[in-house]
Amino acid sequence: MRDQSTTTNSDTSKRRYAILGTGALGGLYGGMLAKAGHEVHFLLRSDFDHVREHGLRVDSIWGDFHLKDVHAHSDAATIPPCDVTIVAMKTTANELLPKLLPGPTGDNGLVLVLQNGLGVEQDVGAIVGEDRVLGGCCFLCSNKVGPGHIKHIDFGRIVFGALRTPSLAAESLSAIQSELVDAGIDAHASDDLRMVRWRKLMWNIPFNGLSVALDASTKEIVEEPHSAAMAETIIREVYEGAKACGAAIDPVWIRKTMDNTRSMVPYDSSMRLDFLAGRPMELETIFARPIRDAMSAGQRMPCVEMLHRQLSFIQSRSRSN
Amino acid sequence: MRDQSTTTNSDTSKRRYAILGTGALGGLYGGMLAKAGHEVHFLLRSDFDHVREHGLRVDSIWGDFHLKDVHAHSDAATIPPCDVTIVAMKTTANELLPKLLPGPTGDNGLVLVLQNGLGVEQDVGAIVGEDRVLGGCCFLCSNKVGPGHIKHIDFGRIVFGALRTPSLAAESLSAIQSELVDAGIDAHASDDLRMVRWRKLMWNIPFNGLSVALDASTKEIVEEPHSAAMAETIIREVYEGAKACGAAIDPVWIRKTMDNTRSMVPYDSSMRLDFLAGRPMELETIFARPIRDAMSAGQRMPCVEMLHRQLSFIQSRSRSN
Repeated sequence: MRDQSTTTNSDTSKRRYAILGTGALGGLYGGMLAKAGHEVHFLLRSDFDHVREHGLRVDSIWGDFHLKDVHAHSDAATIPPCDVTIVAMKTTANELLPKLLPGPTGDNGLVLVLQNGLGVEQDVGAIVGEDRVLGGCCFLCSNKVGPGHIKHIDFGRIVFGALRTPSLAAESLSAIQSELVDAGIDAHASDDLRMVRWRKLMWNIPFNGLSVALDASTKEIVEEPHSAAMAETIIREVYEGAKACGAAIDPVWIRKTMDNTRSMVPYDSSMRLDFLAGRPMELETIFARPIRDAMSAGQRMPCVEMLHRQLSFIQSRSRSN
Repeated sequence: MRDQSTTTNSDTSKRRYAILGTGALGGLYGGMLAKAGHEVHFLLRSDFDHVREHGLRVDSIWGDFHLKDVHAHSDAATIPPCDVTIVAMKTTANELLPKLLPGPTGDNGLVLVLQNGLGVEQDVGAIVGEDRVLGGCCFLCSNKVGPGHIKHIDFGRIVFGALRTPSLAAESLSAIQSELVDAGIDAHASDDLRMVRWRKLMWNIPFNGLSVALDASTKEIVEEPHSAAMAETIIREVYEGAKACGAAIDPVWIRKTMDNTRSMVPYDSSMRLDFLAGRPMELETIFARPIRDAMSAGQRMPCVEMLHRQLSFIQSRSRSN
């Protein structure tokens, strides 16, 4: 697609966004919002100097674009109060949230948590109040391929909802959804965030986990019969765990999760990319919390527990090397 | 220990043995028998020329020795009928048994199957008749470190019994046990072969399997808390599988299996050595058959099934490389 070079001209009638974590996910969605005329403030760490100088480049199946001037911040304290703060960083950095959120969320700002796993809205709610929290899952194949350079290769849907209903967040749900859609993002509102989170776990747990445990791409996993059988067993366990936790997922998603992965372009899961890059894996939110929640609801997930232990072993060894 | 150089002078009053598979296990036990004056015929493959010329060298915690002249055979058909044929080759070569057994077993020879896993006595019984079959498990840390060169580093116990009682094999059990003991081998007779086999699986399934799946030594597995928890979970599953199959194992073996491995010298399991050397792994007898038997008895072993699939994936990938 033709590259669009854009200078941000914010439209003040539109909501102001903060993006905490300008990686594969935050860079894409924040970039789309900025391109559509929103004032968007990006928190960056290692890419800060590069992005301040060269802007943000997004290669996307929705169209390539380059934002020359972006509001880049190396410190959340310099971000002005925003209407919506999107939490898009890895959950392994969630101990930073108490420092990062107060500035951009101000007195009334909402937070949209687009992280992986369970309990992430509660982590944020404990800081800003659960009334102001939205959460969502992204069905997205996107990678950061260089400093300030995002490559979005497949899917892109966000399904999000309010942590509590009624709430300030729930009241704004459909307006925010419209804005995201207007910005070209495939965004859907849901009134059942718990179901959405568990349905995403039906993909994340098997494919993030096995891609590291087997050192394999998602394509290899679904194409080799033994690994495909492992994936399906794990998907079923997560489905049962979800059910015990009160997340009513249509059982058709067991097959659909496998089928969707078969038709996906070959993709390295985020956990495998984290592992290969020597970053910590999101084991707490993607594995430990779902295992604990299901166990509290009386449902064991033995193969998920086994996979979690294997990943913990792998992570512990990679750290000690 | 001082190296003993021995020229075999067979004592014709003692039983004549054949060793099918002169590796870490067959080389050690066959060597001990030959050193004690038994006529022992060794079937060799890749080491045949070396052993015919230089004999067999055994470095053992029971004393080092070197057998200068051994009855080396490259073809089982040249082995004369023996009183006892010890099957000590990998089960992955069991399709060769119909060709290998008739020569050395003759009309009345017994067979002692010292292979890993389940159903190995039945494989042999289908060829020579179940009446003539003994089977046993070796609790042994031994490696072949070079052509005709065995290094026995820890343990060494054989626990063996007859496949059927009463039988020709059962009648000779205690006489053969005495001979093995006289030869310096820590050999014990059991009247419950099924229990012995399943108890050994309580070690083989977790430690052979995890050492390949985690690419780790047994020492690493028992020392890292997550892998140790995996091992213990698997040991418990095998214990339950055994119970369902009628193998009455004292539950103290759950803890004992972990403890024994903790006190073992650091050791690469036979399956890991096979895998690292590019040889096929003994997945059928150590994993597939126990899983099937337990399932037939109404007991699932979910983590064992998962580990089996993971190993099958690893084996399939290593073959396609």
